[in-house]
Amino acid sequence: MKIAMIQNNYIVGDFEGNFKKIEKSILENSKQDMIVFSELCVSGYYPWDLIHRPHFITKQEKSLEQIKELSKNTDAHIVVGAVTKNENGVGKDFFNSLLVFHQGKQVFSYDKKLLPTYNIFDEKRHFEEGTKSGLAELKINGKKTRVGFFICEDGWNDESYDYITNPVKQVAQEGASIFITINASPSNLGKLQQREHIFSKIAKRYGIPLVYVNQVGANDDIVFDGSSFVFDKNGEKQVQMKFFQEDSYVYDSLKNNKSIEKTPDKYEFIFEQVGLGMKDYMSKIGIKGIVLGCSGGVDSALVAALGALHLGKENVLAITMPSKYSSSGSVTDSEDLCNRLGVKLLNMPIKSEFDAYRESFKKDAGIELKGVAEENLQARIRGMMLMAMSNQDNLFVMGTSNLSETSVGYTTIYGDAVGAYSPIAGLLKTDVYGLCHWINQKFGEIIPPSIIEKAPSAELAPGQKDSDNLPDYDHLDAIIKQELFWNHLSEKEQSETQNLIDEVDENLYKKVLKLIDQSEFKRRQAPMAARVYPMTYGSGRKIPVVQRLIAPVFDHAPQYQSKRKH
Amino acid sequence: MKIAMIQNNYIVGDFEGNFKKIEKSILENSKQDMIVFSELCVSGYYPWDLIHRPHFITKQEKSLEQIKELSKNTDAHIVVGAVTKNENGVGKDFFNSLLVFHQGKQVFSYDKKLLPTYNIFDEKRHFEEGTKSGLAELKINGKKTRVGFFICEDGWNDESYDYITNPVKQVAQEGASIFITINASPSNLGKLQQREHIFSKIAKRYGIPLVYVNQVGANDDIVFDGSSFVFDKNGEKQVQMKFFQEDSYVYDSLKNNKSIEKTPDKYEFIFEQVGLGMKDYMSKIGIKGIVLGCSGGVDSALVAALGALHLGKENVLAITMPSKYSSSGSVTDSEDLCNRLGVKLLNMPIKSEFDAYRESFKKDAGIELKGVAEENLQARIRGMMLMAMSNQDNLFVMGTSNLSETSVGYTTIYGDAVGAYSPIAGLLKTDVYGLCHWINQKFGEIIPPSIIEKAPSAELAPGQKDSDNLPDYDHLDAIIKQELFWNHLSEKEQSETQNLIDEVDENLYKKVLKLIDQSEFKRRQAPMAARVYPMTYGSGRKIPVVQRLIAPVFDHAPQYQSKRKH
Repeated sequence: MKIAMIQNNYIVGDFEGNFKKIEKSILENSKQDMIVFSELCVSGYYPWDLIHRPHFITKQEKSLEQIKELSKNTDAHIVVGAVTKNENGVGKDFFNSLLVFHQGKQVFSYDKKLLPTYNIFDEKRHFEEGTKSGLAELKINGKKTRVGFFICEDGWNDESYDYITNPVKQVAQEGASIFITINASPSNLGKLQQREHIFSKIAKRYGIPLVYVNQVGANDDIVFDGSSFVFDKNGEKQVQMKFFQEDSYVYDSLKNNKSIEKTPDKYEFIFEQVGLGMKDYMSKIGIKGIVLGCSGGVDSALVAALGALHLGKENVLAITMPSKYSSSGSVTDSEDLCNRLGVKLLNMPIKSEFDAYRESFKKDAGIELKGVAEENLQARIRGMMLMAMSNQDNLFVMGTSNLSETSVGYTTIYGDAVGAYSPIAGLLKTDVYGLCHWINQKFGEIIPPSIIEKAPSAELAPGQKDSDNLPDYDHLDAIIKQELFWNHLSEKEQSETQNLIDEVDENLYKKVLKLIDQSEFKRRQAPMAARVYPMTYGSGRKIPVVQRLIAPVFDHAPQYQSKRKH
Repeated sequence: MKIAMIQNNYIVGDFEGNFKKIEKSILENSKQDMIVFSELCVSGYYPWDLIHRPHFITKQEKSLEQIKELSKNTDAHIVVGAVTKNENGVGKDFFNSLLVFHQGKQVFSYDKKLLPTYNIFDEKRHFEEGTKSGLAELKINGKKTRVGFFICEDGWNDESYDYITNPVKQVAQEGASIFITINASPSNLGKLQQREHIFSKIAKRYGIPLVYVNQVGANDDIVFDGSSFVFDKNGEKQVQMKFFQEDSYVYDSLKNNKSIEKTPDKYEFIFEQVGLGMKDYMSKIGIKGIVLGCSGGVDSALVAALGALHLGKENVLAITMPSKYSSSGSVTDSEDLCNRLGVKLLNMPIKSEFDAYRESFKKDAGIELKGVAEENLQARIRGMMLMAMSNQDNLFVMGTSNLSETSVGYTTIYGDAVGAYSPIAGLLKTDVYGLCHWINQKFGEIIPPSIIEKAPSAELAPGQKDSDNLPDYDHLDAIIKQELFWNHLSEKEQSETQNLIDEVDENLYKKVLKLIDQSEFKRRQAPMAARVYPMTYGSGRKIPVVQRLIAPVFDHAPQYQSKRKH
């Protein structure tokens, strides 16, 4: 059986555009036996409450009719993912379904059984769990073929579910000769390895080859890496499709046709993940250029470099906005950086604005601004300059905060925390350094070493250093890893992380955990950010702003491991 | 049977504080037969992912042990709501449970069966559905008594669920002589009437009296109105407890002891709802005072009045920040308002800041700021003045945007959209006027009529009026009602709303719907706001930022009605 695996980049709710991509792939693969698209490809994943709009279903029906029409002109079975109505009268109104079209007819349908409701997933909000088997008996090349279909999460629980509720085991026991799974599996560090582990095991356990089709592209804060694959019945990888790009591949189940794309290492993965997140967020909204504040520090340097490399240097505008507390390096290093990147840099000192505010407060309110008020004022003047430039030239302001800073609230709301998108808010400070080094190795020394080597500082007060108020970043990042995704670390990583945490003073450790919770209000107003780690702020982590479970015990044990994996 | 109904205000994750409240209520009611608290009273509702923190369960176990200890000193059955562990090894790790303690023992437990996963609810994220019956056979006053327990959502689906899955019908058929339901039922306009309708019907249908205990207070954007009640077996209301306040009441099922608090009308309801939302958000975080920008318009006037009435005039600081486009009334009306309210007003013109920015852009970037960039600049200078004052004096900036503006994005992000909390972002502009009139009637003319009567304007450009770009507010609000909560309108309201919409030019109608979707990115960075309508922005509405199901058809049909009610 020749199976065309289609790894496309869809836009949520863009039925016309998504159909055009599907149509193109069908026409290109009309000679194959089967053409397999990803989960909810017709609407894009994840449509959220758009599902409840009546024209969502109307438009989707039209797309499905068109796909059915197309199936008249090919002998291929066309496998798509779509929202279907639950006509049972009980439970949620919809299913998350897999539909098979053949020669002008819908010949099979399957409804996803295991609906994820953790991390970024909330599928029980819209879908009812399916009850039908995923086993389809299809006539392929004149031969009856038993295909075992399932959808994404259905495949992630093979070891913990018994026969009745395990969709994989069920189709295997009903005689599937091949597994075909359609997916919208979000990407994060470690996910490729996790998928490989789980699905190679499934193929091997049942002795059935497995075809895994994923989507690619970013929708809001969720990035999909593509990287569809095939495991043979021994659990050996036969096909590894491209990472972070649209791709298609024809897998012939009768031939030994190995084709393996090289798996990216950690920093290449991060580079592509945040690049795709940023590019898709912008292009799907329709904005080409960005503007960012360039402080001479490593975070803004990385954002400028990511912008230049992913969007083109002509689409990046940097502004350096020195205040009286800025080091001389803040301007000269920014100039050096922008020269190397070929990016335009404006120098707009904020002294006159700063003086105007201070003067108004003195004259009109009798107040001498000081401390945090004065520090934040500088950051906010810069935020406003960027926003004015954004309004003036239709540019997206790129946030330059990283995950370490947003964790402990070491950002100024409406100041350096402004932005349409935050490409590095998913990266720990230690990752920021790592990625800068990787970029310099890969693309030549485009980030000045002087920027990478200087001690981090917000430069909002005389001689200020980040480490004045916080543990150094190695230790801070260890605490954040523990708080955010301890369960996702390997045993080795857990032990390394724990060793670092043990070196932190108890009071400082408690202070950091408290800051993480107390900064929740800032993150609620933070720009959208590309997800990088398996658990991070944003749609996957739901912690109330008002709550008092803040002060943790020192021997902060790992979080409960949910019985469902993923 | 004498049942003490306890309507307390809990803080999420505040196990010590919540226990103290529970202890006090137990001690005060130790002579009664039963003391009934609300859903998840031990931890506060809704704890979200705090549930996964190990000390959540440890602390909760300690509270439950203490409650069990207290039950030794009374003959009362103590009914509480708490998170319990699911030890079955399949599915989610926890249940949302009701526990009954009596004389030092846990004598009964029930796990919520119907877990809501719509609007603001996401209980399948943390909880597994219960399987046990809610029928408890308790020895009360030496007499075996069959009590039918259920939890919140369990009671909202009586008509659509058959015996097997209907928790209410099940306990009725198993011989319950009384229904007791514990709740954390969020408040919104129309909710009181909805509850009354559903639960009086249940009592009447089965001929069984029903005791309904709800919590009160606000946690994040969700407000609970309390308003616990009892219906007798004929569906007649016997008890109506207080609205928006802590309260307790002892209901004697053998006596005719009617006690009915008067139901608030629309504007009293809104006044109390947003007041409680604001007060609890502030007091639970520990902030006493607010600062707001006073434009001379009706929105900021209402926020100032709400602040003065709910927090005390001494805790409100208003700042008027005129620009060259401000009408003279913007200052004089603000002075008049603040005199009437007894609130301190500062006059801080923004000319020097505005000039400084314009000058910098001209000198350092060769740019003459104009159009939206110039308009937004003024709003953002004001936002920064407020934030500087907030930092200086530890005040919360109150947002002054209303629901009509946030719907169509008629706010400046990082400008007038700044704030720690937005008390009126749940109110349509037409409600803003209504509430101003109600306040003036109730508290004397504390909002100057000149403010209520002037045409709404952002005053960011010469002679600007809101109606230049948008339909007038009667028509705009009709479109927003249709988009947000059409299904929650009565038939009469639907017909009135439709009539208004029919008067709107088709292109303008389409423009508004498009603006609603395109402003999603602004709302993602908006301050927390008290919910007022059954469906509103914030945690209950999940629409992607990047999506293309924007342009709707003109005959925008009502949204699909979910088969589950609520």
